[in-house]
Amino acid sequence: MTPIAATVREYLMGLQARIVGTIAQKDGGMFVSDAWEKGPTEQLQGHGITQILENGAVFERAGCGFSHVRGPKLPPSATQHRPELAGAPFEAMGVSLVFHPRNPYVPTAHMNVRMIVATPANGDPVAWFGGGMDLTPYYGFTEDAVHFHATCREALQPFGAELYPRFKTWCDDYFCLKHRNEQRGVGGVFFDDFSELGFDGSFAMLRSVGDAFLPAYMPVVERREHMVYGERERAHQLYRRGRYVEFNLVWDRGTHFGLQSGGRTESILLSMPPLVSWSYQHQAEPGTPEHALTHEFLVRRDWLT
Amino acid sequence: MTPIAATVREYLMGLQARIVGTIAQKDGGMFVSDAWEKGPTEQLQGHGITQILENGAVFERAGCGFSHVRGPKLPPSATQHRPELAGAPFEAMGVSLVFHPRNPYVPTAHMNVRMIVATPANGDPVAWFGGGMDLTPYYGFTEDAVHFHATCREALQPFGAELYPRFKTWCDDYFCLKHRNEQRGVGGVFFDDFSELGFDGSFAMLRSVGDAFLPAYMPVVERREHMVYGERERAHQLYRRGRYVEFNLVWDRGTHFGLQSGGRTESILLSMPPLVSWSYQHQAEPGTPEHALTHEFLVRRDWLT
Repeated sequence: MTPIAATVREYLMGLQARIVGTIAQKDGGMFVSDAWEKGPTEQLQGHGITQILENGAVFERAGCGFSHVRGPKLPPSATQHRPELAGAPFEAMGVSLVFHPRNPYVPTAHMNVRMIVATPANGDPVAWFGGGMDLTPYYGFTEDAVHFHATCREALQPFGAELYPRFKTWCDDYFCLKHRNEQRGVGGVFFDDFSELGFDGSFAMLRSVGDAFLPAYMPVVERREHMVYGERERAHQLYRRGRYVEFNLVWDRGTHFGLQSGGRTESILLSMPPLVSWSYQHQAEPGTPEHALTHEFLVRRDWLT
Repeated sequence: MTPIAATVREYLMGLQARIVGTIAQKDGGMFVSDAWEKGPTEQLQGHGITQILENGAVFERAGCGFSHVRGPKLPPSATQHRPELAGAPFEAMGVSLVFHPRNPYVPTAHMNVRMIVATPANGDPVAWFGGGMDLTPYYGFTEDAVHFHATCREALQPFGAELYPRFKTWCDDYFCLKHRNEQRGVGGVFFDDFSELGFDGSFAMLRSVGDAFLPAYMPVVERREHMVYGERERAHQLYRRGRYVEFNLVWDRGTHFGLQSGGRTESILLSMPPLVSWSYQHQAEPGTPEHALTHEFLVRRDWLT
């Protein structure tokens, strides 16, 4: 392991532990922790720790995974902006999470922070970072979206005022269900191939994003978790969760590529909701909160002005 | 419309009507019939009739769609074996169905029959056919798989004894969840780019396959629909339905391509089950029928020997 990789790994494993600890405390339920290894094959060897809480009081399914893989040849798809590194030995590591709450008033959250380091034959290691977080409500609350975005902006502020608007737009572009002409949620921030602040600056930015997840999400959970709901809200939540499945299996590059290229299925599919419904041409009545969700929240909007 | 297209269209619409009529009678519930149009755009214009029964007594979700689209330029992906026709004006039409029963002992069924006709600038129209049917049980019964396959073989027999084994293998190759190393179900038959019997012979074969669907499936439905089940079987069914979603959204070329290229989302997603669950590392105990399903039924097997 390069010294760079050891440093980042330590941060990522600590982040996973902190997040899982906070969620377990909030929920009262237990995470199962599953250490896995994959390979070695000619293409890849890796290991990880998958932690998951199922059927909790607050979270119906909450998965948080750390993974660290190594391979002799960086796939071209991993280096769109650095074609000269394709084929170099590499390491990739990251923490990824998706939390599906039980109460339909509590939004689903996703966060991911990752680093890739490639070591070309005649040169020093090159590292770059990617990740972000986004929020997917089933019932829209402006103050939740504003809080989430404000926390993201604050986390990025020390690294340049232009980062938040740039990463916010990137997130909107990415988390879009093109076959529905719908955004997955109210967005957040997303970035990839990031190294423009040098290793120290870029890694500091990654940490700032990772550290911001709990402050961005937990106040929203606490504000909504005791709201009373019934069958109508539950049915709406199950239906909307279908969109999460559609996005992840059809559009999400990580999921799609991971499944098609022999990644660890059960860890990749941590993001799947616990219970989901589909029905034909389901449409909410104008004037209802279910209608407001798609028309006022799942659209590109500037939440901070 | 070419005379060829008019003939095939008449057959397909009749087939849809017969199948929907039989299913509605069996269920006692009502299909909603939804006529839609798409375009015209520069790439495509089309229309169709989507018929769907939701929340029925026997079928929890049963969708059967007819569609007919026309375009000025055949996409290269539609003509893997006929590169010389790429770019020619074309028509495509088909009937596609997926039936998700309520009782976990009744298998899910899928059937599709379709034709593409291309008319190159200096030549006569060229038509080819594709389709097939396959069965996805939640509890395995050898006699059901044997009956389904025997009916498929019988339908193909008049057109050559080699067709059934060829199309059976094609089906196994296609309906495979590579990320799980699991077959989607017990298979059936599948074919594409088929014109080797000339138009008349190939179309006769298509009709024979389409006509065989009800005789292949309905006896299985009738044998299983009154079997008593409880929470355990229901939970198993919901979990296994997740595999259906994974296959269709990740691997099925028609679904994936349709969603990514601007097809009609709600018609494409007729195949989605009504209610689905995911859970981490779910594994059945050896010795149970749930374990037998994956180990004895969702594997490549010759059902007719």
